[in-house]
Amino acid sequence: MTIENLNPHSPFPIGGAAFPHPHLLGISGLKNWEIAYIIDQAEHWVKLNRSGASKHDDRLRGLTIINAFFENSTRTLLSFEIAGKRLGADVVNMHAAQSSVKKGETLIDTAVTLNAMRADAIVIRHGSSGAVQLIADKVDCPVINAGDGTHEHPTQALLDALTIKRRKGPIDEQIVTICGDILHSRVARSNIFCLLNMGAQIRVAAPATLIPHGLEQLGVEVFTDFDAAIKGADVVMMLRLQNERMNGDFIPSPREYAFLYGLNEQRIKLAKDDVLIMHPGPINRGVEITSSLADHVTQSAIKEQVEMGVAVRMACLDILTRKARKVEGWA
Amino acid sequence: MTIENLNPHSPFPIGGAAFPHPHLLGISGLKNWEIAYIIDQAEHWVKLNRSGASKHDDRLRGLTIINAFFENSTRTLLSFEIAGKRLGADVVNMHAAQSSVKKGETLIDTAVTLNAMRADAIVIRHGSSGAVQLIADKVDCPVINAGDGTHEHPTQALLDALTIKRRKGPIDEQIVTICGDILHSRVARSNIFCLLNMGAQIRVAAPATLIPHGLEQLGVEVFTDFDAAIKGADVVMMLRLQNERMNGDFIPSPREYAFLYGLNEQRIKLAKDDVLIMHPGPINRGVEITSSLADHVTQSAIKEQVEMGVAVRMACLDILTRKARKVEGWA
Amino acid sequence: MTIENLNPHSPFPIGGAAFPHPHLLGISGLKNWEIAYIIDQAEHWVKLNRSGASKHDDRLRGLTIINAFFENSTRTLLSFEIAGKRLGADVVNMHAAQSSVKKGETLIDTAVTLNAMRADAIVIRHGSSGAVQLIADKVDCPVINAGDGTHEHPTQALLDALTIKRRKGPIDEQIVTICGDILHSRVARSNIFCLLNMGAQIRVAAPATLIPHGLEQLGVEVFTDFDAAIKGADVVMMLRLQNERMNGDFIPSPREYAFLYGLNEQRIKLAKDDVLIMHPGPINRGVEITSSLADHVTQSAIKEQVEMGVAVRMACLDILTRKARKVEGWA
Repeated sequence: MTIENLNPHSPFPIGGAAFPHPHLLGISGLKNWEIAYIIDQAEHWVKLNRSGASKHDDRLRGLTIINAFFENSTRTLLSFEIAGKRLGADVVNMHAAQSSVKKGETLIDTAVTLNAMRADAIVIRHGSSGAVQLIADKVDCPVINAGDGTHEHPTQALLDALTIKRRKGPIDEQIVTICGDILHSRVARSNIFCLLNMGAQIRVAAPATLIPHGLEQLGVEVFTDFDAAIKGADVVMMLRLQNERMNGDFIPSPREYAFLYGLNEQRIKLAKDDVLIMHPGPINRGVEITSSLADHVTQSAIKEQVEMGVAVRMACLDILTRKARKVEGWA
Repeated sequence: MTIENLNPHSPFPIGGAAFPHPHLLGISGLKNWEIAYIIDQAEHWVKLNRSGASKHDDRLRGLTIINAFFENSTRTLLSFEIAGKRLGADVVNMHAAQSSVKKGETLIDTAVTLNAMRADAIVIRHGSSGAVQLIADKVDCPVINAGDGTHEHPTQALLDALTIKRRKGPIDEQIVTICGDILHSRVARSNIFCLLNMGAQIRVAAPATLIPHGLEQLGVEVFTDFDAAIKGADVVMMLRLQNERMNGDFIPSPREYAFLYGLNEQRIKLAKDDVLIMHPGPINRGVEITSSLADHVTQSAIKEQVEMGVAVRMACLDILTRKARKVEGWA
Repeated sequence: MTIENLNPHSPFPIGGAAFPHPHLLGISGLKNWEIAYIIDQAEHWVKLNRSGASKHDDRLRGLTIINAFFENSTRTLLSFEIAGKRLGADVVNMHAAQSSVKKGETLIDTAVTLNAMRADAIVIRHGSSGAVQLIADKVDCPVINAGDGTHEHPTQALLDALTIKRRKGPIDEQIVTICGDILHSRVARSNIFCLLNMGAQIRVAAPATLIPHGLEQLGVEVFTDFDAAIKGADVVMMLRLQNERMNGDFIPSPREYAFLYGLNEQRIKLAKDDVLIMHPGPINRGVEITSSLADHVTQSAIKEQVEMGVAVRMACLDILTRKARKVEGWA
C-alpha cells in the first residue's frame, strides 16, 4: 500500500484495520502502511498548525500526557509539549535530567509511578538504549520514544520522511545520502529503517570509525568518501556531530571533520540540482554544514523539519490514544 | 464522627459545617472529622481518575495554582501539577530550588510576590521546618504544605490513610509499624499524627539515634528491635533512608542498616498474613526493602499510594478553594 | 494625546488607529499615546485579576506563547506565564539558561526553530543587549522583550508607570528619583525613556562610576548625592544592586553603598510626605532599602508593582496578537 492509497480524510487505513501497536518505540518493526499512515495523518495537523492564530483541536481534552526527559533536549521537549497542548491534553513535563530521579530510584519505579498517576501517554527520552522499552513494558498507556541512547528516535525519522515526501514526492524515487556519525546516531538508525521501508535508495558517508557493521546487508551503500556518496543524491541528510566525539578517539578534530565530511557549496554541486538539504538540529555551523547551505532558501528543509516535527507528534499522540478514547473502530 | 457517618455524595460534612481551616499546613491541629472528610472526598477523585481516558472536572477553571518548590521533588510536584490540571486550574510551577530565589530574596518577599500575582492556591515544599507557615501568614489564599523540613508532609499522611482504609478497612482496627529514620522524617511525623487521630495502634522501629523523644507520651510504642515491632502488624510502613544519613553519624552503613532495619521475606512473616506494605517512595531497593516485597502483588501498596496521592491532592485543592469559589455553604 | 483621552472600554485608541508595532522591544521608539494605550488597557486586566476566584478571559485560546528565557528570572517568567494562561493561551516555557541551547546553537537558529513551531508570540529574556531584536527580525510573530542585557526591559517600565499613575495621578506632575546602578540597569533605561516620554521630571542618583554619559542631554538631572536627589521627590525608585557588582570595581562594599545610596527612614523624610517607594525586586533588604520602608503600608508600592506586572503583560499579549487574531480594526 502506498501513501496515495490512504484516504487522507479517514482516521482509518483502508480496510478498517486500526494501528496495531500500543506504543511507538522505534521504526524497526513498523509495516510500510503504518509508517505511511502516520505520515498521512500528520498532513492534517500541518494544515491546522498553519491555519492562523487559533490552532486547537481538543480531541485529547481530559487526557494527561507526561513528558519524561531523562536527557535534556530543548527542541524535542518543546515540540512534544506544543503538540500535546494543541490537542487539548494536560501536558506535564518531568525534568528527570535535573531532578530527584538521581536520588537512585530505578527506571522501573519511575515507570510504575507515572503509571499510577494514570497518565494517558508517556513520552520518554533517555540516554540508554532500550530504556524506553523497559518503561513501556511496565505501564498501561501508550509510550512514545523521544530518543533512547544510540537505539531509535522514531518521530525524527517520521518527520524527515514527511518532509521529503512533501518536498520531493514519492520516497521510493529518492536517493538519500546520510552523512555523519552513523555509528552513534539514533537519528541515522531510525531514518535508515524508515527510508528503507519506504523504498528509498540509501547511502551513508562517514569516517570508517563511525560506520556500524552490517549496513550493506540491509541494502545500504556505504562510503567513506563523501564526494562519491553525494553524487546524484536527491536528499542530503547531515547528522549533528556530538561535542563529546569532536576531539575524542573517533575523529582527529572538528576542522578536519569539516574538511572531509562537512557540507559546503562545492560539494553540494555534486548532488542533483534540486537536492534537498536536511539536518535534525541543532546545527554546528561551519562543522557539519556551512551557513549558506543551512539557510539556503530553496534547498534547505531544516525549518520545515521543525514544523513537521510538531505535526508528526500530534499525529502520534492522536493515533496512539484512540483506543483508550474509544474512537469508533479503534476501541 | 467516623468516616462512615459522612455522606460520600455530599460536599459538606454532616451538619453543614464547612472545613474550617484556610490552609493545610499539617495534620497536627486537624480534628478527626476533618481528616475523615478529606479522605472521603478523595474517593470521588479516585473514581474520576479511573474513569477512562478523559478525567477532567473543571471546577477550578480560571484559578491560578502556584507550585513553589524550594526543594526538588519530582514525584510530589508531578502529583500536585496533575491534580491541579485535572481540576481545570492554571498551574504554574516555580522551580525555586534552581532559580533566582537564590539571589537572596527573603522567603517572605517571595510569598508577597506570589500573593500579588493573585494566586488562588499556593503549594509549597521547603527544606526548613516552619517555612510554609511563614508564607501562609503573608498571603490571602490557601497554602498547602508539600513538605517542610522535618516538620510535616500532610498530604502524604492523608494519602497513606486513604490507602490503608481502602485496603484494610477502618483505621482504628489497625496495628501500624513505621520503621526507619523517625527523627528526621516529616512523613513519619505526619503519619503518626494522622494515624493516632484516626485511632490506629502505632509502633515505631529505628536505631536509638533516630528516635525522637516524647513518642511514648503520645501513645506510640517505641522499638529498637524491628522484629519485635513487626510482630502481628497489619501495616508496615517503611521510610526512605536519606542518602546524607547513610554514612554519617546516625547509622554505621547502609548494609548494616539493611540487616537490622530492612524489610525482607523473613521478617515480613512475623507480621499478619494479610499485612500491607507501604513506602512513600522513592525506594532504595535492597536498603529499606527488598525488591520482592516492594513489588509484591498482593501485599505491596506502593503503587496505590502514588495513585491515592493525586486523588488526595485534588480533594485538598477542591476543599480549600471552595470559600473563594463561593461554593454554597462555604463562602 | 493624554491617557484621559483614551476610551477605557474601547480596544482602539481614539481615531481607530491600531497599535502600529509588531513587537515590543523597548520603550524607546514608542509614542506617548502608545505607552498610554498599553497602560490604559492594563487597567482592564487589573480589574479581571481582582475579580475573585475565576479570572479567565479566553481571547488567546488556541494560541501558542513561548517564553524563551536565556537568563533565569523566576518572577518575570511567572508573571508572563500567568498572564498568558489567564488569557487562555497554551504557554510553553523554554528554560534556555539550563538547557541544550548551550550545545552551541546560534541564537538565530533558536529563533527560526521557535518560529517553525508556529508560535503566536515569543517572550524573550537574554543576557545580551540586542539579542531580542535579533530574534524579532527572524520570526513572523510578535516578540516581547522581557529584559535584554543592559538595554531595555519595557514591561517593567510600563508596570512602573501604571503603578505611579494609579497611586499618584498624572505622570507629568511627578518628580521621580531613580537611585542605584543606572549604568548597567535596563530597568533604569526603560524607566527613563518611559517617564520622560510621559512628561515626568527625572532625577538619577548613583556613584559617579555607575552613571552613564549623556543623561543630562535627555533632560535628566544627575546627582551623586542621594540626599540632594531625594529632596521633594514624589516617587523614589530604588534599583537592585547586582551581586556581581557588590565587591567589584564599581562600589567599595555593600555596607558603604547602603550608607551612601540606601533608602532609610532618615533619608525618606527629605522626600514629599506622600512619597511613593518603588523597587523592581527582588530586594536586597538592608542594602538598597531598609525593611521598614520596603514594607511600609502606605508608602511602599512594591507589592502593587508585582500585581501591575501581570496586568501589563496581559495587555501586551492581547494587543500584539490582535492582528493575527483578526480583531476588527487591527487585521
